[in-house]
Amino acid sequence: MARVCIPLAEGFEDIEAITLIDVIRRGGIEVVTAGVGADIITSAHNVKVIADTTIDKVSADDFDLVVLPGGLPGATNLAKSQEVKKLLQDMDKKGKYVGAICAAPIALKEAGVLKDKYTAYPGWQDNIKEEGYVSDAKVVEDQNVLTSKGPATAMCFGLEIVRKFASQEMYEQLKAGLLADFC
Amino acid sequence: MARVCIPLAEGFEDIEAITLIDVIRRGGIEVVTAGVGADIITSAHNVKVIADTTIDKVSADDFDLVVLPGGLPGATNLAKSQEVKKLLQDMDKKGKYVGAICAAPIALKEAGVLKDKYTAYPGWQDNIKEEGYVSDAKVVEDQNVLTSKGPATAMCFGLEIVRKFASQEMYEQLKAGLLADFC
Repeated sequence: MARVCIPLAEGFEDIEAITLIDVIRRGGIEVVTAGVGADIITSAHNVKVIADTTIDKVSADDFDLVVLPGGLPGATNLAKSQEVKKLLQDMDKKGKYVGAICAAPIALKEAGVLKDKYTAYPGWQDNIKEEGYVSDAKVVEDQNVLTSKGPATAMCFGLEIVRKFASQEMYEQLKAGLLADFC
Repeated sequence: MARVCIPLAEGFEDIEAITLIDVIRRGGIEVVTAGVGADIITSAHNVKVIADTTIDKVSADDFDLVVLPGGLPGATNLAKSQEVKKLLQDMDKKGKYVGAICAAPIALKEAGVLKDKYTAYPGWQDNIKEEGYVSDAKVVEDQNVLTSKGPATAMCFGLEIVRKFASQEMYEQLKAGLLADFC
């Protein structure tokens, strides 16, 4: 079974984080949420979530993918965290996957693990890099980096992660079960 | 400013609950989450959320809408709660709005506040009532009752609530901001 770590920093985008957790767990993939700087984290829209663990206890050895929810200031808090940076760099060095949605690809950029092509929240590429920004895809994969656009693409992003780390069959079953015909 | 109460019972559907909270709060509407039987509630996919209050402290006087997330056993836990039932009946008596998504219209039915037309998770109408079930709409409004289908329609349901309790302008702004072109 694949294992996915989702770091949660103060101000994480609620829909993006929770949709990724829900869809990936539905796919039979283990998800561990890791609080950045605390174990109770408040979202961008004031929902208090108790994380499964804290980021200082997380090792790249234990995961196949680390994926970051967006939101402000959630994404910039992720980008500023030395522990998140080290985790992303360790994942990248081991040839493992990293991912981010919305504003969070800025943390991939800061850690130096972003490759050429990527997507992010429209307009936010100005804060990351113009070159390689893909405007017309819900999910972009380039080498070991998976990115997506924003709240309304989080479900499709989760489904693509399920397709990649579980199976095509599980992807189709979940897509139908979620009623996600737009993905 | 309108006020919305979202009861959370053990096993609530993560995406549905959090998407409603997020979208409605983005719309400038006050949302109060109310734990049923506890103030820390675990979702259907094992996310622990600290509710803003508990259901025993909530009064219909204070809200314009009470809307229920689905999920199993979240929805059946809502349907079994005498406090949720009384709150829904009080809202209905006062001519205020009640709503539910996915499996949760069963709680509206149990409380006797469901009107004629409604929607719910496809197939789940067998557990509620066949008559009046609308299969081809993301959101159905009949008198003071708002219903929706499942995880992938939660964002559109939230947006419709914003259109109704905030404004058309806010609806359009949020729909664009969320990238929710499918709503």
